[in-house]
This record gives sequence, C-alpha cells and structure tokens, in this order.
Amino acid sequence: MNEPLHNLRTVWWDSGPMLIDQTLLPATLVSVRCTTLDDVVRAIRTMQVRGAPAIGVTAAYGMALAAKLSRADVAASLLDDLQRAKVALDAARPTAINLAWATRRVLQVAERASELAIDQLRERILAEAEAIRDEDEAMCRAIGRHGADLLTEHRNILTHCNAGGLATAAYGTALAPIRTAHERGQLLHVFVDETRPFLQGARLTAWELQTIGIPLTLITDSMAGHFMQQGAVDCIIVGADRIAANGDVANKIGTYTLAVLAQAHQIPFYVAAPTSTIDLATPDGEHIPIEQRSAEEITHLGGVAIAPAGVSAAHPAFDVTPQQLVTAIITERGVIYPPFQASLRSMVEAAEQGR
Amino acid sequence: MNEPLHNLRTVWWDSGPMLIDQTLLPATLVSVRCTTLDDVVRAIRTMQVRGAPAIGVTAAYGMALAAKLSRADVAASLLDDLQRAKVALDAARPTAINLAWATRRVLQVAERASELAIDQLRERILAEAEAIRDEDEAMCRAIGRHGADLLTEHRNILTHCNAGGLATAAYGTALAPIRTAHERGQLLHVFVDETRPFLQGARLTAWELQTIGIPLTLITDSMAGHFMQQGAVDCIIVGADRIAANGDVANKIGTYTLAVLAQAHQIPFYVAAPTSTIDLATPDGEHIPIEQRSAEEITHLGGVAIAPAGVSAAHPAFDVTPQQLVTAIITERGVIYPPFQASLRSMVEAAEQGR
Repeated sequence: MNEPLHNLRTVWWDSGPMLIDQTLLPATLVSVRCTTLDDVVRAIRTMQVRGAPAIGVTAAYGMALAAKLSRADVAASLLDDLQRAKVALDAARPTAINLAWATRRVLQVAERASELAIDQLRERILAEAEAIRDEDEAMCRAIGRHGADLLTEHRNILTHCNAGGLATAAYGTALAPIRTAHERGQLLHVFVDETRPFLQGARLTAWELQTIGIPLTLITDSMAGHFMQQGAVDCIIVGADRIAANGDVANKIGTYTLAVLAQAHQIPFYVAAPTSTIDLATPDGEHIPIEQRSAEEITHLGGVAIAPAGVSAAHPAFDVTPQQLVTAIITERGVIYPPFQASLRSMVEAAEQGR
Repeated sequence: MNEPLHNLRTVWWDSGPMLIDQTLLPATLVSVRCTTLDDVVRAIRTMQVRGAPAIGVTAAYGMALAAKLSRADVAASLLDDLQRAKVALDAARPTAINLAWATRRVLQVAERASELAIDQLRERILAEAEAIRDEDEAMCRAIGRHGADLLTEHRNILTHCNAGGLATAAYGTALAPIRTAHERGQLLHVFVDETRPFLQGARLTAWELQTIGIPLTLITDSMAGHFMQQGAVDCIIVGADRIAANGDVANKIGTYTLAVLAQAHQIPFYVAAPTSTIDLATPDGEHIPIEQRSAEEITHLGGVAIAPAGVSAAHPAFDVTPQQLVTAIITERGVIYPPFQASLRSMVEAAEQGR
C-alpha cells in the first residue's frame, strides 16, 4: 500500500481497460479488468472509478474496447457500434462532462479516420484513448504548476472529495497544486473533508496525501466552517465535474457550502480542472443535470444500516457553485479569473486550436 | 420499536438512574442501570445519554445516586461526598452547561436542607433530581408552544443533530415546536442532517420523527446548503449546549455552518433551549470550552476503519454560532429576540425569581 503514488495508475489499457476498484480503498488495493462494455459502464456507475477526468479516460478506453469487440468488417458498421457504445457510456453518469467529451473525441477521430483499413481504424481508436490518458496526466501536472504559483502565500488548504491522482489518470487536479507546491519544498497542511456519503476524502484523499507525505487533518464535512471561523484555513481548492459557460461549477455535493463559507470568511475559493471540464454548450449551472443517486447510499454505510428502516433520504451527488463565489479556475493552460464568461470562452477556443 | 415516543423515557429513576443506551439506537432499544457514580459519568462521557437537557437530568440523578451510596451519617460529610460527585460529573463533558447547572442546583438544595435528618436529606436530594426531570419535560412542552407559534408560516424545516425527546427527559427542544405544530394539525416536512460523526440525526432524530409520523428527508450534512439554494428550506431549528450572556450559541459541530448558510439564503435560524442553557457567567462564545473528542470517532464508524490507519483527524464536538446569526432563541418562558445581551439577562432573572 505504500508504493509511491507516482507509480500508481488509476486507469490503463492491458488488452482492455484496467482500473483500480476505488470502492475498496484504502483497505484493499485491487485492480479490475473490464472485458465487456457493460463492465465499463458498471465500473463508472458504481463508482469503482470516479472523478471527472478519470471517468473521461475510462470512457475513452470503453470506446476502444467497443471497437475491439465489434464484429464489424467495414468502417460504417464499426462507427455504428461506436455510436451505440457512446450512448451507453454517456448515460452511466450524467454530471461529469469529461465523459461525453472523451467519447465524442474518440468518435470524431474514428469518423475522420474511416478510410483506414478496419484493423488500422481499431488501432487508431485505441491510440486516441491512450492519448487522452497521457494528456490527462500532462494536464494535471500543468494544473499543478499553475496552481502552485497561487499557493505560495498559503499554508493551510482545505479540499473536498478526491480530486487527486485517483480522480485522474495520475497526479490529480485539486491536489496537483498542493503536490507541486510540496515538491517545490513549500510547507503545507491539508484539511481533508471526509465527504459523505462515499467518504472519498477519508478513503482516497487522506490515503494519497499520507502516501505522498503531506501533513493532513481529516475532518467531517460539518467541521469546515468551524475551522474557517478559527482562522485555520488559508484557501480552498476543489475539482469540478462540469463548468458552465458562465463559470458556474458543478462538483461533489458539499462544494457549494464550502464556497458560501469561503465568502463569509474572505478565503480564496479555487477550482482546479482541465479545460475539458468546461462546457460552453451549458450556459449556466441551472442547466447542469444533477445526478440523483440511491437513498440507500445515505441510509447504509458498507452495507450496514445507519438510519431506521424505511426512512426517506435524498442523494443529490453534486451541487452547483455560482460563479460569483469562485475566486479563480486553475486549468492546464493557466489560471482564469472573473469575468468568467469571456475568459472561459477564449480559454476553450485556444485549447481547441492548440490540439 | 414503534411504541409512541410519548411513553418513552430517556432517563428515569428506579432505585437508581436508568437510561436508554442511545449509542445502540435505532437498531436496539436497551435500557441501562447505573449502579455507581462511575457508571453515570461513563454514560455521559461515552454518549449513552446525550443532549444538554438529558445530560442535566442524568447528572441530577447522579447526585441522588451519590447521596444514596454515601456512607455519611452526618449532613456535613454527605455534602462533602456530593461536592466530590459534582466535580466528577461536571468533568464528564465540558460544553453542556446544563450539566453543571443541574449538579449545582441539587447541591444548593442539599446545603439549604442540611438541618434535616440524614435520610430525609437523601430523600430531599432525590426529590430535587425528580423535580429537574419533571420540569425538563414541562419546559420542553412550553418551548413547543412558543416555538410552534413561530412556525405557522413554515413548512420545510431543517434540523441538525438530535434535540428531540432523546436529548431531554421527554419531548425535546428543537423538535418540540415541530411536534407541537404537528399536533396542531400543521403540515410539516423536516430535513434531517445526519450529523457526523455520531449520526444523531440519522439514528435518533429520523427515528423520533418516523415514530411520531412527521414526514422527513434524511440528508448528509453537506447537502443542507444545496437544499437551501434550491429554496427547499423555510427555516432552521437547532438546540443548544450553552448560550453565552451575549447570545453566542454552542451546539453540535456543524451548527455554525448552518447559521452561515441561513444568513446567505435569508432563512430564519432559531435556537430552542431551556433557560438553564443560558450561562450569564460566560460573556461570549470565545469563553465556552469546546470539547475535543477522540480522533478515532472520526476515522472509525461502528468499530470499522473508514480512513487509512494512522491518519490524523480532528474532532471538535461543538462549534460556536455568533449571536448576530441567530434570529431568535425559543425558551420555555417565551421567544427572545436581539439584542440578546439584555433579553437573555432579564429572561434568566425572571426564571430564577419564578422558581
């Protein structure tokens, strides 16, 4: 369990998609092989793999698996199979935009390469999925560099959920600036929200930081306000599952509360995410679909009931932080400040030209 | 498990203090007999009994048990034993002021009655403890009446932790206005914060409301802001463990965050508590001692690790909500509005004259 996370891959290809089953961490480190498209969809839906960028990489590999398993012998029918695979993958989780972004990118590459021989086309599709994985790690490291420049004055950083290496191909988004600052020798301490109901903070972020050697204090989500009130938090960094055109940010449930608290305490509130998370087609947060998950994920923990039988529970998996509560968005291409409407559009256009 | 809560006692005397072991609810309803003072101290410390008013009643019974077990044959040495018992009981939990309030009240009665024969003195002490229990239930019902008058315009109420019947001798503080409004025929729905780490909301409040038949939705603490943002919450009611002279309120960790969110969404934030919770000797929240509990209560749930071994965790059991975030304080003697410094003092003085 203590091997450096630098060597730990979240999602990779080995004759098919492989991934770490994150529902079993930190107790057990097990990798899972997906042999069917259903396996991939299920891994995303049940959160064996989670975190918007990691979901994107997994979905890209899902497209490559669909191409591999397709019995098509002409490009047109392979593309039909890819279309169907994209529909199934996109439906696995509705909020993270990187999912549809990755499947669309693979599909578009396949469409543009449809004149290739069928086996070469399959190779081209896998190559694009691998490129998405490799780019993801490179993007995370760039987010780390840009973000670490923002943290030089900060020592105590609060984060929510897991936007670490496990949420990406490697290295992380929200944790990337913290890791880079740590690698540069800056002394840091991280308050880790446990992040109910799935406890990604307690299980995954605490584990990553502990493995890297960055001091941390695990807290319940309900303690964040208290520590801000005490002056113990210098800034907040979270990831994002989707950023609307106006800068509204969908992220793990509880993020909005942190943003309100940050404003009340005049603490910077940073969002770290690759530009693939920005969805110019979604005008604002009201148009972001919020995944409603099972009530049983609230009333039970590890299969054990923590509430009376038959009790009603709500489980919105995400919330929306309005752009006016966001201090800055840290991307792989640099830090974006308000007004976000303009800065996000030019950032995305530059990213698309850069490819 | 479905017997009416009206018949359910939290703490009572049957040759000694008896209490429901709330750590086992809702799965198991078991009562525990305290045969030594240590049993009483342990029950308070380990939260078999919790909630400021219930702790006060338990401590009063603890004093009666100390008097019963004392081998003193003169009043002076019985008073010495009671002094020692008070020190042990007061140290069991530092934040709830009702604890020291109840032990002081019993001790003062004993001092004033020291001319009685020793067995009569013991009876007088037990009678005072019983009076505290009976008054507690009467106070809760009065809080219910005053509070229900405030709720007539509200349908969706959010509460945190458990300030219900289980937190008092019976009927509750924060839940009392909800119960009274429900008894008056008002349609209500309650958002119940699960309240990590001890899950008093999921385990106790959800159970009480379900048993009474008041519709509820269980949510994680991190969802409260989201539902306020959605316009789904009309007001917030919480209990209190101590109210300082200026109106600052110590209550279960997470309460402060709710108060900040309430202000941001212009939602009334009510505190319901008996006047015994008001501590004029504590000028403001900075002077309220905040109990720091074990980190293991954060890293483990039901004995099972939910975080990596060896991880640091913080566990402040309470936080302080500054008085400017409190809309009103609902007591058994009426509703108090700002400025609290003056209104709290006159309320306490009236309560003391009324006894």
